Amino acid sequence: MQKKAVILLSGGLDSATVLAIARNQGFDCYCLSFDYGQRHSAELAAADRVAKALGASEHRIARIDIGAFGGSALTDTHIDVPVDGVEGGIPVTYVPARNTIMLSYALGWAEVLGAQDIFVGVNAVDYSGYPDCRPAFISAFENMANLATKVAVEGKPFFIRAPLIDLTKAQIIATGSRLGVDYGLTVSCYQADHQGRACGVCDSCRLRKAGFAAAGVTDPTPYIG
Amino acid sequence: MQKKAVILLSGGLDSATVLAIARNQGFDCYCLSFDYGQRHSAELAAADRVAKALGASEHRIARIDIGAFGGSALTDTHIDVPVDGVEGGIPVTYVPARNTIMLSYALGWAEVLGAQDIFVGVNAVDYSGYPDCRPAFISAFENMANLATKVAVEGKPFFIRAPLIDLTKAQIIATGSRLGVDYGLTVSCYQADHQGRACGVCDSCRLRKAGFAAAGVTDPTPYIG
Repeated sequence: MQKKAVILLSGGLDSATVLAIARNQGFDCYCLSFDYGQRHSAELAAADRVAKALGASEHRIARIDIGAFGGSALTDTHIDVPVDGVEGGIPVTYVPARNTIMLSYALGWAEVLGAQDIFVGVNAVDYSGYPDCRPAFISAFENMANLATKVAVEGKPFFIRAPLIDLTKAQIIATGSRLGVDYGLTVSCYQADHQGRACGVCDSCRLRKAGFAAAGVTDPTPYIG
Repeated sequence: MQKKAVILLSGGLDSATVLAIARNQGFDCYCLSFDYGQRHSAELAAADRVAKALGASEHRIARIDIGAFGGSALTDTHIDVPVDGVEGGIPVTYVPARNTIMLSYALGWAEVLGAQDIFVGVNAVDYSGYPDCRPAFISAFENMANLATKVAVEGKPFFIRAPLIDLTKAQIIATGSRLGVDYGLTVSCYQADHQGRACGVCDSCRLRKAGFAAAGVTDPTPYIG
């Protein structure tokens, strides 16, 4: 029997690559996405396309209320998404405790499924401003998970897998391309339109564009205008 | 200015006591409850009564989807709530990753509020079957939180306060009674009716009854029949 894994799937380039890596390692993949009051729903539609294309066994979308707390340009419509290039420090697109909350849900589902492996597409290289994308955070979460849960206490530990954590965007794209990911299905843009077309100017679009260029892979992203 | 704290408030006896303790320590209290597909909503109504009675500054209810994962008698209507007394081991009323998920939300809200203190009513004595009620879990969560968040990285750490962790139910009741908690407002029963009346026979009712008896405090709980 294949081992089950829970994959956090956003509909973006990174998590699509993670799903392809988990499938390539032989896991039976259960994908989890979140509706957290995003400005657009294009990324959830993308997550569904990606899950199907890469042979996930199941794709669930959990509705979470983090938008209600505010504090991020991604969920608070009173803060503008920056379009003038990547700045230093922690970006205003940071969502409070987002990865912590998402990994906690993944942990709950993994426990019910009997899965010990949770895959997440965090990356410490291109997005170093997010504290919850660093290796120290991932290992602290894993440690906490193994004290939090019935199955772990009974001797079946969880493993938080972050296979992209040390890769550049170009290396991620090269890896996924080798594993057959169709990046035309993914949406990374912070303000994509309803058809999933990207703005081309937000931080996420800039990093993605530069990644394709550096990887020497043709950028299949549909851009607005 | 008073320091702000986020208090996880369930509407039960333990978290009402925690709110009274936090107020008594001088905190400006922001209470957070969860609608997670409970079998009954009496406990959310109780949480609201308790927040008002004890002078909380705000009470929010976040809707979370953990019921969708199943695996617990509290959220899965296919598993019966046990009524034959407290058994050994981890009870079937265990909800996968519940405290992890709830603390993660509290962390997100605390970050937005500028609060460094998060209070939770976990207790390792009477409910020792729950792995996420032990001191080791609380301290692993705190460690993870201080690696996860922008404010902690910038030098303002979070503290997960679990003031009941080593208390017996009788000691909790004695503490709350001294601080003026009206336990008649709280609902602990796993299967309370719509008016908040308790069954008297589930594990939670049995522990609560025994606690009042041991504390020598009159039990104000409205029971069915």
